[in-house]
Formats: sequence, structure tokens, C-alpha cells
Amino acid sequence: MESKYHALKERAWAANMEIPRRGLAIYTFGNVSALDARAGVFAIKPSGVPYEQLQVEHMVVVDLEGRIVEGTLRPSSDTRTHLVLYRNLKGVGGIVHTHSTYATGWAQAHLPIPIYGTTHADHLAEDVPCTEVMSAEAVERDYEMETGQQILECFRHRDPLHTPMVLVAGHAPFAWGETPEKAVYNAAVLEELAKMAFITRGIHPEAARLPDRLVRKHFERKHGPRAYYGQK
Amino acid sequence: MESKYHALKERAWAANMEIPRRGLAIYTFGNVSALDARAGVFAIKPSGVPYEQLQVEHMVVVDLEGRIVEGTLRPSSDTRTHLVLYRNLKGVGGIVHTHSTYATGWAQAHLPIPIYGTTHADHLAEDVPCTEVMSAEAVERDYEMETGQQILECFRHRDPLHTPMVLVAGHAPFAWGETPEKAVYNAAVLEELAKMAFITRGIHPEAARLPDRLVRKHFERKHGPRAYYGQK
Amino acid sequence: MESKYHALKERAWAANMEIPRRGLAIYTFGNVSALDARAGVFAIKPSGVPYEQLQVEHMVVVDLEGRIVEGTLRPSSDTRTHLVLYRNLKGVGGIVHTHSTYATGWAQAHLPIPIYGTTHADHLAEDVPCTEVMSAEAVERDYEMETGQQILECFRHRDPLHTPMVLVAGHAPFAWGETPEKAVYNAAVLEELAKMAFITRGIHPEAARLPDRLVRKHFERKHGPRAYYGQK
Amino acid sequence: MESKYHALKERAWAANMEIPRRGLAIYTFGNVSALDARAGVFAIKPSGVPYEQLQVEHMVVVDLEGRIVEGTLRPSSDTRTHLVLYRNLKGVGGIVHTHSTYATGWAQAHLPIPIYGTTHADHLAEDVPCTEVMSAEAVERDYEMETGQQILECFRHRDPLHTPMVLVAGHAPFAWGETPEKAVYNAAVLEELAKMAFITRGIHPEAARLPDRLVRKHFERKHGPRAYYGQK
Repeated sequence: MESKYHALKERAWAANMEIPRRGLAIYTFGNVSALDARAGVFAIKPSGVPYEQLQVEHMVVVDLEGRIVEGTLRPSSDTRTHLVLYRNLKGVGGIVHTHSTYATGWAQAHLPIPIYGTTHADHLAEDVPCTEVMSAEAVERDYEMETGQQILECFRHRDPLHTPMVLVAGHAPFAWGETPEKAVYNAAVLEELAKMAFITRGIHPEAARLPDRLVRKHFERKHGPRAYYGQK
Repeated sequence: MESKYHALKERAWAANMEIPRRGLAIYTFGNVSALDARAGVFAIKPSGVPYEQLQVEHMVVVDLEGRIVEGTLRPSSDTRTHLVLYRNLKGVGGIVHTHSTYATGWAQAHLPIPIYGTTHADHLAEDVPCTEVMSAEAVERDYEMETGQQILECFRHRDPLHTPMVLVAGHAPFAWGETPEKAVYNAAVLEELAKMAFITRGIHPEAARLPDRLVRKHFERKHGPRAYYGQK
Repeated sequence: MESKYHALKERAWAANMEIPRRGLAIYTFGNVSALDARAGVFAIKPSGVPYEQLQVEHMVVVDLEGRIVEGTLRPSSDTRTHLVLYRNLKGVGGIVHTHSTYATGWAQAHLPIPIYGTTHADHLAEDVPCTEVMSAEAVERDYEMETGQQILECFRHRDPLHTPMVLVAGHAPFAWGETPEKAVYNAAVLEELAKMAFITRGIHPEAARLPDRLVRKHFERKHGPRAYYGQK
Repeated sequence: MESKYHALKERAWAANMEIPRRGLAIYTFGNVSALDARAGVFAIKPSGVPYEQLQVEHMVVVDLEGRIVEGTLRPSSDTRTHLVLYRNLKGVGGIVHTHSTYATGWAQAHLPIPIYGTTHADHLAEDVPCTEVMSAEAVERDYEMETGQQILECFRHRDPLHTPMVLVAGHAPFAWGETPEKAVYNAAVLEELAKMAFITRGIHPEAARLPDRLVRKHFERKHGPRAYYGQK
């Protein structure tokens, strides 16, 4: 009999396979999960399995208490971070964690990615935020949970669907979206923004941010109530 | 019955497909249009459709008043910028807008790309110009029209066929040419010039521009009245 | 009759072929060896043979005194470096030498790669060490042996399985592991760490190292006695 | 009847096709020639023909007076530069001109590429030399001839087979070798050296050159009278 989570696992698997295809990770440096909000479960990549060997059946289904509902492999070691985010970020249906090269470069510098241009403003209306470096106390507690908490701390006054990405200081990026496909898209966009900003800063270390008027215009062209980008 | 714009749409489609092939854009970050000057219409990419799914029939045909003449999809959100340019830049038969990585890096720095070498001078005889950042008033008016106006402002004393590319400050590049194929070629060349200039500036921040004598020599070797590059 | 070293040679060959596939070397700029500790021999790439032409039978089997045990081609000119390392680095079963671009960039700067983030700490708990530049006396002696000696000097107080990589100053990286496959993995990870660190330093020349608490946490998550990354 | 230059043209064609395969040029930004020293002719790429369309029969055969001996297309606009080099650089059997990205970045900075490491010393025992910027008088004379003259000026006290590459200031690199295949190899090595040196300089702007003792050791390991790299 087929698993009742088959469709969810397939979707999580396909989103995971986009990670190496888009050049967002080598080996096992990333993971994607897909939420079924109604069922209260998400499917996630197993820990340490390289993408070349990844099969739909390898996906692990976990409920929002962190219990494995289906699957024989150990889920990603970052599962509890995904868990904390799903529990708290309303409307999020997919989460991506990668160590994509340029975004990680910024995370390692503990710096937000400045909103230098409209490519950035087309996707979020502010710098890509960067968390604090985790305290010794938090590291001692439940590390993966605390990674999620730090992201939440950073999003206390932010709308996660308007700013669907974050840098974890000293670590690497997380991105998300209403669907797992959108989450992967946001992870790929983030890497491109990170590379463009690296280039801009290299050319002109004092480059100015995009003026607010243009940030708002571009963001609303795609995301505002009168958005007119794309097909209806 | 086949559309009388079929050939134009096919040409626009083929030129659009070069964008991802040349690595000039990810996802939907770019668009190409092809003009039929006699018919007074141009075919352009529909808004928000990824290249992998793009079909010839998706192309939207628009006249020089901005009215859709053929096509069921919404044209690129940048259509009115193309429109303004076709109306004012004599001899231009194809226009490309991308967010290619290095050219966008310079546009975000609000800096023209210095003419450091003969690769550059083979294609244009001056720095790649960069527009002003758009004023609040212009943003409030018709944003895409105004983007075109800013480019025109920048080309008031320039020959658009001699300088077939521009950076829109805080945004990204536009390139054009007598044909859509030539426009894509110019967009790819621009990205390469932008990368080379980034490297040169990284090695030597005070690098000098190519002396005028060499600029003129290279430009005229390819474009002057006694050009001797290529086949007749 | 088939060589009794066939399996070893095949393993060495497969590991060598990963080098161009992972983009770690052009032409002949790299070599991998695989040790059979029980037999006291290792199989290594022949000198100057491009990867496209490399066959299993080309592998040269050498004993730990440096005598060729099997093979008609000359072994890699770096063979004596591998030899010195196998003799002295306990538990190492595979060694990789490449001139991968970013790691070589750091080696040429005579600088260790700072441990800026968790991608790094997932693999080693300190900066990627960099040897001294070789003295005139050592160059005059047996150059390849001395390259090995310099690495050993650098590892006098290090556990080679905890820090499975090194930069040879003015030269390029070496990486190793318990198996040849793991050694290639470490070489690819090193190149990625080198690129990320280049980016971080470009963004923020005074970027801080990852705090110790996070270094230990990440390293132990994967390598400590209570490691919980990957499948059991 | 088959051309008596067929083998030469085929060899030149194959060497030209390596240029895009190795990522050394986009569109028509490069050309390779192959010399038949006995016949006193060389085969060279035609001007402005993209690599994707290049056929063996397109190759143009030119004698050492610059007369076309065979071929219906116009030869590369850089033909007279190749001519000057073949006439003066003894032992050279193939010449490559590209605008490869990193090497051109250095040429645009008018700076030789410092010999930072052994990858470099494996191929030449000094910095990659950079010519002077061409004077106004020379530009007015025969530009392509003068480009060759400038390279010769730079090689007055150099052995072209020991230093098989040069940067033409404000322009781009030339590389050569005893055969066209070796010339392409040197062009690809040059691009890699240029990229590595860019990275080293980015990490450490005051990085020291490789000490002489190591330069000599590595160069002689491959090229000296007692070379022991590669197969006999």
C-alpha cells in the first residue's frame, strides 16, 4: 500500500533535488522540507545522504512535536530548526537550508546583505537580515532549536512572507516560502543577491542602498495589493 | 491560420532563449523584444514566465502605442521601457533587459564601467554609461516609461548604435542592437566587460583607462568606415 | 592473470577521476593515492597523464620504501610526499594533492584559512594550517620528501584525522582521510571553505573567527563521541 | 583533390575548438594558428566566425610574407601579429590569442602577473610579462604588426619557449608553444595563473613572490636538463 504521505515526500524530494541543480550546495550541505499544514507534518531530507543517491522513499515525515511519523532513516540534523520555524512562521509551507557560497560568505562576516538594487527589492523590501551570533548558554541548550529561536528573535517585528530569508551569523542562510518550490526559489535568489552585493561592495565599498522610493516601487510591483508583475 | 507575426515572435523567442543559455539571467530575470519597424510592432516575452516553459506562442505582440496586437498573456512588466526606447532610438531593432550578475553589480554601485581595454573598445568607444538614480517624482509617474526616459536622458548626446548598452543606476543593464540577435550579443558582451572591469579594479583600483588612440583604433577596426574585422 | 592490486588500483583510479569532475584541477594538476595498509603499498596516479586518458592499468603501485611494485609508468612526481605522509600520519588511507584555485590562492598568500563559520567547523576545529615556506637547504635535499616533512612539522601537535588538510606555503593544498574517497571529499570541502573565506574577507577584512563554543559544537555534532549527524 | 594543407588546417581547427571548450573566450574573442615551419605557412582562424560554426575548411593558410595561400575567407584580423611572432620567435609552432577573463583583467591593469606559487613556476620561471602600452606613432603605423613588435620588444632578453605567454597592456594575452596544442595548453594555464594571482592579491595585497630557490626547483623539475615530471 502506498504511503499517505507519498505526494508530500515526492514534493520534498523534488525540491531537494533542485539544490544541487541550482548550484546551491555540494555533497550534503543543504536540506529542504515540505509542510502539510492540515496533517501537521512535514517531509524532510534524511541526514548525510548525498543528493545523487537521494530517493523519494528516503524522505522522513516528522510531526510538529518532532516525532518521526514515517521513514526509516534519521532526519536531517537541522530538523528541529525547521520545526521551530514551522510552528512560529505563519503561512510558511517550505523551508530550505543551504550553505550556498556567497550567502554563507556574508553570514560568516556577520553582516546583513545591503539592499543595493531592484533585483533585491523585487523580492524583499529591506536588507537580508542577519541573526546575532549564538550565546554560550544557547549552544549548551538544544542547538538546533536555538538556531530556530534566533531566527524568530530576528523576525519578531518582521513578516516572514515579505522577508523570506535570513542569514544565521557564523553559519549560513535559511530561506522559506508558502510552498517548498517557492522556498527553493528564494534560496536561489538569495545566493544571486549575495553575489551581486559582493561585487557591488568590491567595486565601491561605500555604495549607497537603493532609495526607499525605489525599494517600495519594486517590491509593490511584485508583491503589493496592486502588483502587476507576472500572469494573473 | 498562422499569425502574420509568427516570424517576429519566433525571432523574439529564440533571442529570449539565448538569455539563460549565455548565463545572463536566472528564473525570469530578463526579457528580449524584437521590432518589426515596418509594421510598427514588437514581440516581447510575457511577464513572469520562466525560460524553461517559454514557447513561441507565448510571445506578446505590442504596437508602438503600447496596445497588445496579439497574444493572450500579459507582456513583460518592462514593456513600456522597451516602447520608449524603440520610439526614440533610431535604428534599434532589438532590446534586451537582464539582471546579469556583474553588470548589475556595477549598476548597483551607480558607476559607469571604465573602458579599461580593447575588448571594451571593440564594442563601444567610451565607458558603459550609467543613468542617474530615478527621482521621487519620476517613480510616482509611470515607472517603466520613466526608466526609458532616464536612458534617453543619458543618450541625449550619444549614438545608440555606437554605444548599444547602458546601466540603469540601482537597477540593471539594458542592451540593444540593429537586430534582436545583435542585442543579445551586446548584452553578453556587456556582462563580460563588467566582469573584466571588476577584476581589473580588484587588482589595481587606480587602473588607467585605455588611451584614446587605442580606443579609436579598436572601435574603428570593427565599426569605422574602413572596418576590417569579420567577413564582408 | 589479474593483478592482486587490481581493487586498490581501481579505487585509486576512481578517486583520481573525481578530481576533474569536482572542478579541483585542470589538465594534470593533481593526484590521488590509495593505501593498502596491510600490504604496505599504495596505488598512485602516473606523472603527467591527463585525466581524460587515465586508465585503471595506468596506476602505479609503490611500497612504503618507495619501490615500484607494479606498473610500467613513472609514478606522480609527488610520490615521495605521499610516502612520507603515509609513513607518519596514522590512520590515513588516502591522500589528495591538487592545485585547486581558491585553496592555492590562500597557499600562495602563505596564510591559514580562518575558521569563519560552521561549514568549516563541521570539518575541522581550527584554521586550515599553512606550512612554512621551504628553506634553501631543504629544497637542495630531496624536495618531495621535504614537502612531506614540512607537513609533518606542521602536524607535530595535530591529529591528522581531525585536521585532514593543509596548505603548503607558496605551493598548494594536500588533503587526506581514512579512505581515498574521504580524502577527495576533504579536498573538495577545502576548496569550498577557501572560496567562502575569500568572499568573507572581501566583504569584511576584519571578520572575526567563529567563537570556540560554536566551533566545538559543530565539530562534535559530526565527529565527537556523541555525533548525531548522518546515518548510523 | 584534397588540399595539401589539410592536416595543418585540421590541427589548427582542433586547437581553435579547444578555446571555447576550455572557457577561454566567448563568441569570436580568440584565435589559434598552427605553423608548418618546413612549408613556411601557417593555418589560422578566419575573422569573426563564431566557434559553433567553425569548420576545418574555413581555416586560412597564410605564408610568412602574409600572403593567403589557401582559403576563401578573410583570415583573423590579428594575422599579422601571428606573422611577426612566427618570424621572430624561434621554435614556436602554434600561437593563441584570447581575451580570457582573468588574464585580460591583469592586462587591463598593465601589470605583470606575479609569480606567487609553484603552479606558476611549473610553467615559467618569472612573472608573466606585460608589454608597454602602444605609443601613438605605433598605432598609426600597422597596428597588428606593431602588437607583434611590442611583444618582441618585451622578449628581447627572454627565451620564448621558457616564457610562453605575455600580456599585451590594455589588450589581452598571447600564448604560444612548440605545437598548437601546447600553445592552447599554455593559454589555459595562463588563465588559471591569472585567477589564482587575483585571489592571492585579494587575500593579501602585499603577498610575496615565491622565493627563487623554489621557482628554480619547480621550473627545472618540469623543464630543466634533469626534468623528472611526466613520462619519458
